[in-house]
Amino acid sequence: MKRRRLAILGSTGSIGTQALDVVAHHPDAFEVVALAAGRNTELLREQAQRFNPAFTTTAQDGPDGLYRVAVESGAEVVLAATDGSVAFEAVFAAVERGVDVAVANKELVVSAGELLVETAQKSGASLLPVDSEHSAIFQCLIGEERSSVAAILLTASGGPFWRTSREAMENADLGAALAHPTWRMGTKNTIDSATMMNKGLEVIEASRLFGFTGDRVRIVVHPQSIAHGFVIFSDGSVKSQLAAPDMRVPIGYALSYPKRLESFGEPPPAKLAGSPIFRNISSDTDILQLLGAKNGEATLRYEFEAPDPARFPCVRLAYEALSEGGTQPAVLSAANEVAVAAFVEGRIAFGRIPEVIEEAMNRVRPEEPTLRGVRRADGEARTAAGEIVAAIERSTV
Amino acid sequence: MKRRRLAILGSTGSIGTQALDVVAHHPDAFEVVALAAGRNTELLREQAQRFNPAFTTTAQDGPDGLYRVAVESGAEVVLAATDGSVAFEAVFAAVERGVDVAVANKELVVSAGELLVETAQKSGASLLPVDSEHSAIFQCLIGEERSSVAAILLTASGGPFWRTSREAMENADLGAALAHPTWRMGTKNTIDSATMMNKGLEVIEASRLFGFTGDRVRIVVHPQSIAHGFVIFSDGSVKSQLAAPDMRVPIGYALSYPKRLESFGEPPPAKLAGSPIFRNISSDTDILQLLGAKNGEATLRYEFEAPDPARFPCVRLAYEALSEGGTQPAVLSAANEVAVAAFVEGRIAFGRIPEVIEEAMNRVRPEEPTLRGVRRADGEARTAAGEIVAAIERSTV
Repeated sequence: MKRRRLAILGSTGSIGTQALDVVAHHPDAFEVVALAAGRNTELLREQAQRFNPAFTTTAQDGPDGLYRVAVESGAEVVLAATDGSVAFEAVFAAVERGVDVAVANKELVVSAGELLVETAQKSGASLLPVDSEHSAIFQCLIGEERSSVAAILLTASGGPFWRTSREAMENADLGAALAHPTWRMGTKNTIDSATMMNKGLEVIEASRLFGFTGDRVRIVVHPQSIAHGFVIFSDGSVKSQLAAPDMRVPIGYALSYPKRLESFGEPPPAKLAGSPIFRNISSDTDILQLLGAKNGEATLRYEFEAPDPARFPCVRLAYEALSEGGTQPAVLSAANEVAVAAFVEGRIAFGRIPEVIEEAMNRVRPEEPTLRGVRRADGEARTAAGEIVAAIERSTV
Repeated sequence: MKRRRLAILGSTGSIGTQALDVVAHHPDAFEVVALAAGRNTELLREQAQRFNPAFTTTAQDGPDGLYRVAVESGAEVVLAATDGSVAFEAVFAAVERGVDVAVANKELVVSAGELLVETAQKSGASLLPVDSEHSAIFQCLIGEERSSVAAILLTASGGPFWRTSREAMENADLGAALAHPTWRMGTKNTIDSATMMNKGLEVIEASRLFGFTGDRVRIVVHPQSIAHGFVIFSDGSVKSQLAAPDMRVPIGYALSYPKRLESFGEPPPAKLAGSPIFRNISSDTDILQLLGAKNGEATLRYEFEAPDPARFPCVRLAYEALSEGGTQPAVLSAANEVAVAAFVEGRIAFGRIPEVIEEAMNRVRPEEPTLRGVRRADGEARTAAGEIVAAIERSTV
């Protein structure tokens, strides 16, 4: 089998390192041709020694380095796993040239998703979702006609505050907000999970990636986080994709698409570790493990609950940004970053996060979502959100 | 849209009438060209008046009538929904000519499945499963490579005796065995559900239809009967298909494949009735209803349990018949019919049903599963099972 040439933007981050773990388990499937990291040069050096890319770059090298990794490396698939907007131009350059992109850079799809999808449609590049929820929807849509889809549902764990009262959430401290029940992620993402802004952003991403308007993209809370998404078809059929909450599953799928890898690492549940999996199934409780049961459990339960918009106003704000369109999703995303940082720094209460975002969305005027427009809206939103945070600080001293 | 020409073998049975209900709701999608019924000539006459087929036939007309319905009617898709083996030749004749067949005739796939699939592969005819479990697997396999499938799981409701002790099952009466929790079906199918032979037969069907050996076809008990099947892929991803327990969903899918209908009748849940469905979603609890929640429920729960082979020996017998191959599945199926009939007539205890089948499987020698071989094995199995039943009766008087 010919190895697939892979370049990673953001190789030292959470998604980047897990992607390299997938590659390490499938040396016959991938050839790492280029790696780009930010400031963690030591880890990048280790990765370079292990995977032997022709080219590496760091934040010091500036945008030219990212461009070389994404485009000049000759990669067949680029994993876009940097945070923020640093790699926007490099990713667009790859997509314009028809290079497939595995998209883990949330801001890219939230802020510049319309443009990205349009560019990919023109060049024939595939945009492959890395998020477990979007990977689920992508997988459920394979071989199906878009016109027969009634709705798509993204599952949400509900985050640490799913059972918390509105009053208690109002002044929740950082420790409580960081206690995510299922996934281990960075601080920003974990706070987004506590406000459920993560789902709001995912709704926008799903709308962009799959071309459904916001009213057809819905959320269902599923505390076990085994089912990652549902597609509801017009004829009453529903398809769902499920997997252990291990990011290497959707990462591996995005990198190997349309093929599937033979295994995805040394995962939980342990029975999935084999290659092929099925050789390791020896008992009937093992079957349940494949559906997400913990070791030896003889009954497995999935629960689904309707989301509660009252306690999670960030979800509403995301739907509003999506419906307003233009650069409003970029404003939402940037203002959210500022608000979350202010909460983490102890400057504002947890309950004020949505206020900051909503007020910033009111202040920044939407415009056409060109790359330039997005950058400008992003900057204006950060300025506005900073001012709003400062005003809140003054009023609560 | 051009209407699809549909012929139904067994139009007055449970599947046949539900198929005509689907057709009645989609007059633009289907044209009924021929109907075949058994003895219910009155209902057939009503159906003929309503759907205006060019041709009808009853049991009185013999095999020629079935052949005319399946082949000479010019149908593009034939729904094979008769019981037993009466329509085998007619269905094979259609498949040989490349006509797509929606298969609801369990015995056909269990007893002559290898031959059927081989014939379809030669002619290019599609075999479209009608059973909800097989439809689920079929839908989850769309667009996927067969080589990346680790296993398929069929869900089972567990039937009326899922929580019953082995001792209580031994002498369970007919009323208890007929109290199926989820689906309404005929007597034979409901007893098969109580012994879980229905799942055994479905395992054989799945093995034939999808080309996986028995060790890759497994059962998981799911009392809510919303998820109908799972496909487990080598990379740790799992796909599932879900739907309300309404046979019109898989029937409609089989008849309209590869398209999906816009709705499937006046179903539960009520929210699925619209066309397209999504117009009727107005609240977040409606979302749960799409996943199977009862009206207004805010939490939905799916449970999955490992099957219990000790209390359901019929499942083991089915795996054995599959693994032995040849005409053994036909023997299993025929002996099961005789044993179930003997239980329904009060001649043997519930707990003796598997004994009759196992003993019949021991007595009838397997042979090549040609149509002729299948018919001979079927006859021999019925004779053997009848003798075994009589012996049990004598010994327990």
